[in-house]
Amino acid sequence: MSDALSSWRDGPARTEILDFIARITRRSSPDYVAPEARIATFDNDGTLWCEYPAQAQVFFAQWRLKALAEKDPGLAARQPFKAFLERDMKTIHELGKKAAFELAFTTHAGMTEEAFEEIARAFFAVTRHPTLGRPFNVLVYRPQIELLNLLHENEFKTFIVSGGGVDLIRAFAEDAYGIPRERVIGSSVKTRFESQGAAADLMKLAELNSFDDREAKPQNIGLHIGRRPILVFGNSDGDLAMMRYAKAGRGPRMALLLHHDDGEREFAYDREFKLSPLSEALDKAADFGITVVSMKRDWKAVFAEESPLKMQAAG
Amino acid sequence: MSDALSSWRDGPARTEILDFIARITRRSSPDYVAPEARIATFDNDGTLWCEYPAQAQVFFAQWRLKALAEKDPGLAARQPFKAFLERDMKTIHELGKKAAFELAFTTHAGMTEEAFEEIARAFFAVTRHPTLGRPFNVLVYRPQIELLNLLHENEFKTFIVSGGGVDLIRAFAEDAYGIPRERVIGSSVKTRFESQGAAADLMKLAELNSFDDREAKPQNIGLHIGRRPILVFGNSDGDLAMMRYAKAGRGPRMALLLHHDDGEREFAYDREFKLSPLSEALDKAADFGITVVSMKRDWKAVFAEESPLKMQAAG
Repeated sequence: MSDALSSWRDGPARTEILDFIARITRRSSPDYVAPEARIATFDNDGTLWCEYPAQAQVFFAQWRLKALAEKDPGLAARQPFKAFLERDMKTIHELGKKAAFELAFTTHAGMTEEAFEEIARAFFAVTRHPTLGRPFNVLVYRPQIELLNLLHENEFKTFIVSGGGVDLIRAFAEDAYGIPRERVIGSSVKTRFESQGAAADLMKLAELNSFDDREAKPQNIGLHIGRRPILVFGNSDGDLAMMRYAKAGRGPRMALLLHHDDGEREFAYDREFKLSPLSEALDKAADFGITVVSMKRDWKAVFAEESPLKMQAAG
Repeated sequence: MSDALSSWRDGPARTEILDFIARITRRSSPDYVAPEARIATFDNDGTLWCEYPAQAQVFFAQWRLKALAEKDPGLAARQPFKAFLERDMKTIHELGKKAAFELAFTTHAGMTEEAFEEIARAFFAVTRHPTLGRPFNVLVYRPQIELLNLLHENEFKTFIVSGGGVDLIRAFAEDAYGIPRERVIGSSVKTRFESQGAAADLMKLAELNSFDDREAKPQNIGLHIGRRPILVFGNSDGDLAMMRYAKAGRGPRMALLLHHDDGEREFAYDREFKLSPLSEALDKAADFGITVVSMKRDWKAVFAEESPLKMQAAG
């Protein structure tokens, strides 16, 4: 197992992860966990892929609004649409994550799931991260893909539990992470079932169904999975509730918190990032037995060098 | 494959199922479906196990109310609690499924998921079906377990999509059907996340989150699975929307409707069963390309003879 996690630097975090997996998979171990209970939940934005200076959800909304504004020019003059269209980050940051995401979700109302999927795939194909210059779905973290692969090899069921819109994540998660659509939990809007003759579709509405952040994360884990995770990975205060929920279960548990402290290879931010602050979780990590992973110290590489689809096929 | 489905009589339904599976799994077939898209959804009450003269959910509520009435004797005098406590089926039937189930859900309010799970397991251990005299979790249909096993052998992901409470189903589905907890979708109540120090729990509330019947079934499939099923099995009008949703997708699709027409081995009921009527779906089966399965004609055996857990271990 020493070849595993090769993009992780030798150090306490890597050692702890490898020890944990060894302990819970060894049949003779007192900490052995049966495969059906090997549930791992990962936040997505900032944990599995880049979320700075804003989540892909925000750039996706901006891209959609550009198309919508062509049909309705008045849109460009009204806030908060104006801020999105002009990539006015200060105003968007001040909205906070929930308001910014809710605005984003309204730009998808009135389309079927299938129509949304096509648009989401087009977004990944044609847009680029504003400073990193690469498609958003390629800006996934190589060390995390290695960790996901290692968990899959060890019969873990991995889930994404994200504040991002579930359908946007589903449009790339299977290719990027090897996590199938039914293992993606995210924020969601209500839908309307429309049927006529042989046609029957789910139409996306503007109304929020669940904003999957903070205490909604354990609530949605209860609803969708029905088992406490034994391993949780997050990067913000929005992930603290699901970490505490996992840690409170009986038996071996592990919670990991990624700290974005690498301004050279990625970005350095925590408390001041209004779209997803990391403050309380960092302060209380020791109290709650949460392992802090430093991007700068613990990761040899940050981004997947190739398209994750190719990496997977090669592996 | 001719040894498969041995509790199914030779006939159009069995042949159609076997042909469908062969067609979508043969790589050279124009109807080939990749394993990740082999999604099958099954209703539970009346499709995988007995639901007559009322769903286990109703008997579970009755059993819980008996315990609650010992602490609050006034309960026994108030409707609809009185009807449950006296097993007054006429009154319970007149409530209809949604009201009866909502009442049932309120009897679980104020407990954690884990406390609920223990109570549900006790219910299965100590109660019996009123006329069949066996534990509810043993009254599962042998032909359906064979079908689930066959689908699993053919890399299908099977899901339960039920109007029953998700946590009650999760308490037995993995043992009975080989369907893991995270593949159970059902009606659900809201929960509250409560944390203090190292403790962190989900507390069940009395308020309904989703009543998973009729159009809510495709809506919840969209939310939880994010893919249209290619095979759906149901037994009532409450399953028609998810059948139409599945059939409306491109490529090969199959929808099956179990008709309870076997008063000798089980029960004969359809239009008049107020807790879950079968009427519109039966009348329009041909229009929507739904295959009607007759319990009397198509099934050699009805119930699993042994505990399903033993069957699975033996198989």
